[in-house]
Amino acid sequence: MYLNGTMRINSQGHLEIGNVDTVDLVKDFGTPLWVIDEQGFRQNCRDIKQAFSRLGESMVIYASKTLCTTAICKIVAQEGLGLDVVSGGELYTAIKAGFPVEKIYFHGNNKSREEIKMAVEAGIGRIVVDNFYELKLLDKICKELGKEQDVLLRITPGVEAHTHEYIKTGQIDSKFGFTLPDGQAMEGVKEAISLDNVRLVGLHCHIGSQIFAMQSFQHATSIMMDFIAEVKKTSGYELMELDMGGGFGIYYYHGDEPPDVEDWAEAVMLTVESKAKELGLTTPRVIVEPGRSIAGSAGVTLYMAGSVKEVKGIRKYLAVDGGMGDNPRPALYGSKYTAIVANRANEAAVETVSIAGKCCESGDMLIWDCDLPSVTAGDIIAVFATGAYNYTMSSNYNRLPRPAMVLVNNGSADLILKRESYEDLIRNDLIPGRLL
Amino acid sequence: MYLNGTMRINSQGHLEIGNVDTVDLVKDFGTPLWVIDEQGFRQNCRDIKQAFSRLGESMVIYASKTLCTTAICKIVAQEGLGLDVVSGGELYTAIKAGFPVEKIYFHGNNKSREEIKMAVEAGIGRIVVDNFYELKLLDKICKELGKEQDVLLRITPGVEAHTHEYIKTGQIDSKFGFTLPDGQAMEGVKEAISLDNVRLVGLHCHIGSQIFAMQSFQHATSIMMDFIAEVKKTSGYELMELDMGGGFGIYYYHGDEPPDVEDWAEAVMLTVESKAKELGLTTPRVIVEPGRSIAGSAGVTLYMAGSVKEVKGIRKYLAVDGGMGDNPRPALYGSKYTAIVANRANEAAVETVSIAGKCCESGDMLIWDCDLPSVTAGDIIAVFATGAYNYTMSSNYNRLPRPAMVLVNNGSADLILKRESYEDLIRNDLIPGRLL
Repeated sequence: MYLNGTMRINSQGHLEIGNVDTVDLVKDFGTPLWVIDEQGFRQNCRDIKQAFSRLGESMVIYASKTLCTTAICKIVAQEGLGLDVVSGGELYTAIKAGFPVEKIYFHGNNKSREEIKMAVEAGIGRIVVDNFYELKLLDKICKELGKEQDVLLRITPGVEAHTHEYIKTGQIDSKFGFTLPDGQAMEGVKEAISLDNVRLVGLHCHIGSQIFAMQSFQHATSIMMDFIAEVKKTSGYELMELDMGGGFGIYYYHGDEPPDVEDWAEAVMLTVESKAKELGLTTPRVIVEPGRSIAGSAGVTLYMAGSVKEVKGIRKYLAVDGGMGDNPRPALYGSKYTAIVANRANEAAVETVSIAGKCCESGDMLIWDCDLPSVTAGDIIAVFATGAYNYTMSSNYNRLPRPAMVLVNNGSADLILKRESYEDLIRNDLIPGRLL
Repeated sequence: MYLNGTMRINSQGHLEIGNVDTVDLVKDFGTPLWVIDEQGFRQNCRDIKQAFSRLGESMVIYASKTLCTTAICKIVAQEGLGLDVVSGGELYTAIKAGFPVEKIYFHGNNKSREEIKMAVEAGIGRIVVDNFYELKLLDKICKELGKEQDVLLRITPGVEAHTHEYIKTGQIDSKFGFTLPDGQAMEGVKEAISLDNVRLVGLHCHIGSQIFAMQSFQHATSIMMDFIAEVKKTSGYELMELDMGGGFGIYYYHGDEPPDVEDWAEAVMLTVESKAKELGLTTPRVIVEPGRSIAGSAGVTLYMAGSVKEVKGIRKYLAVDGGMGDNPRPALYGSKYTAIVANRANEAAVETVSIAGKCCESGDMLIWDCDLPSVTAGDIIAVFATGAYNYTMSSNYNRLPRPAMVLVNNGSADLILKRESYEDLIRNDLIPGRLL
């Protein structure tokens, strides 16, 4: 359900997170405001870590692209997880937060020379090589730097996860990875083995996002283990690490039924174990990369209600002070969210309203047809499960400053991201002298 | 078609803009790079201004949401256009650029108290009031400040422009405006007339974006003129300003056939004139709000080609060093763009490639199935018509720094937006003491 972690409705009928009343949060920090439930976030880390580690040698690496700030990196490090980064900017953030570099994995379909150099020089744990071009480039850079680099190869196994088109990444017509069915993957492995400056440690795959069907993971794991066996048979080389990516679904909206994290762990770990036995392989270390399932449910966005517009017999629109700038997912994917009135959270729903953002664009609608108590300007609208892919995908569209983010825990609230100012918006603007 | 303004292929076979070779631009400013053709931008301003002014009293106001930096505001002011802003951030930018505030129009479905106050205090030309809530709020704020404010009311006329779902704003089930068909618009007008601190000057409507069918504009103009006549008949009040919004389409891709700007001007101005005669009205001053048709075609994005991946028999992927971070329109709307290889622009196309962005997301595809000469890493890919809704909608997804923007003219290139640095990305990050 939408209330999770430390979220509850207090005796005043207010939404409370980390023992902090959201009405107080709004007074202290303004709106829109991203609120991260620290205990909820940490518990998600622990649950996933434990679910996998009790079944074998494994490492959970947190996907930065879902939510990445220096404070978040700090918490992830404290929880003993690794980190998955996809750019120099994410790597830079992790390094600034003092994240142990040997536990960082670097993904991406088009890492630049500068990014690769930065990663190798920093002593990054693994580079997940996406394609032949990158494999050669990495080998060259390592040679220049006089370093050897541990790598995984990203494999496109040809598994379709049943989820939204845009976030389906296992099919073979993909910009990512060495395709398995057409023999590219084996070629890639052979080339990686032959190179002097990269050390092939294992394989990676990622079959999609927001996946609810655990058979997708079983199926993909099984295919990857078969391929590891094929590699051993063909080249005598035994791959010791299998990174099964992320994609574990979370609850956003009525009807979403994500399975338990134990089911995910079992789908992966038991398949690895049984296939290793069947194929006569040493059981590889398993890596998983949850991001959304750690950060997603731990985040709530607080908005202030403003304009109300009623189109008689058709729809009531309620506008809030944020929208597609701070949460582009409804516009991008048609994503659905759950909302409540945070300052009157125990009142019964009496009407159906559609929650509009404030951007000058018809597509800026956060939630269609949401049942709420009667709302007026000044009410606080809480939207749940916004911890992942909200801040990281946010823009300054319409020159709206991006919201602040607070970390709440045990009755205290700490700013971990300052609200952007108008000055921030024009910080990089320049007017050439000849225009003055 | 895609080559416009000062864009041409020079004798070396390089794309040149404003007499500057794009190969040199890449050397000097790096990639991805937004390039704005100053003469092209200015010419678009002039063409539209002239097309309307030759047909009657009119003002062209440039839509900031399409492209807004201090330098761009400066150019718009120099061309004698007005400005349409939709937020405090855009207004702040305009003020910092010294834009004449009396020529600024403030739009939006949910302006905050702070934004309204900022606008009224600055002496803004018009506030385009969206709904009853805002009308009351504005009147109250004006009273507090001891000021009177000129306003337009945004009317939703119930016209559907034939364009993409997300950018269709004339239908009555819309978050914007006072609905005309159900009588809300007339109620709004009466209330505005009755208020002491707002001065109702006229009406606004906006029927959609990227519109090619000029009948949509004729039809909407005709409806609005009928309503002005109805207002006069009902209340004796004659509205002297009619803002017909924006939405004039531009060329993005093979098959797009935007009409001449003269056709747009005629569709609006001749309808206003003939309806005014027919209805016995003084011809109102006409306002139009082009943004995309000024900035869109004047902008080109330069990317560096990197990884190439071929899925045999299916597709060849070419990855560039930007993507949905700097241009989210393909992911948001399925928008199509035209690209060339800027450093070998006179070579014949020999293959069909799909241009991928570098974001760790399958949906990050810039152009599917683009015919290009054989491309390799290090080639420069130019994507056309990216002047509008690229920078303004850009994000730091994957913590990619946002590109720089240069203004080119007469052989010189001036930075008008500095490239974001890694330091910029964590500028607002804070780590609470208790996490250290």
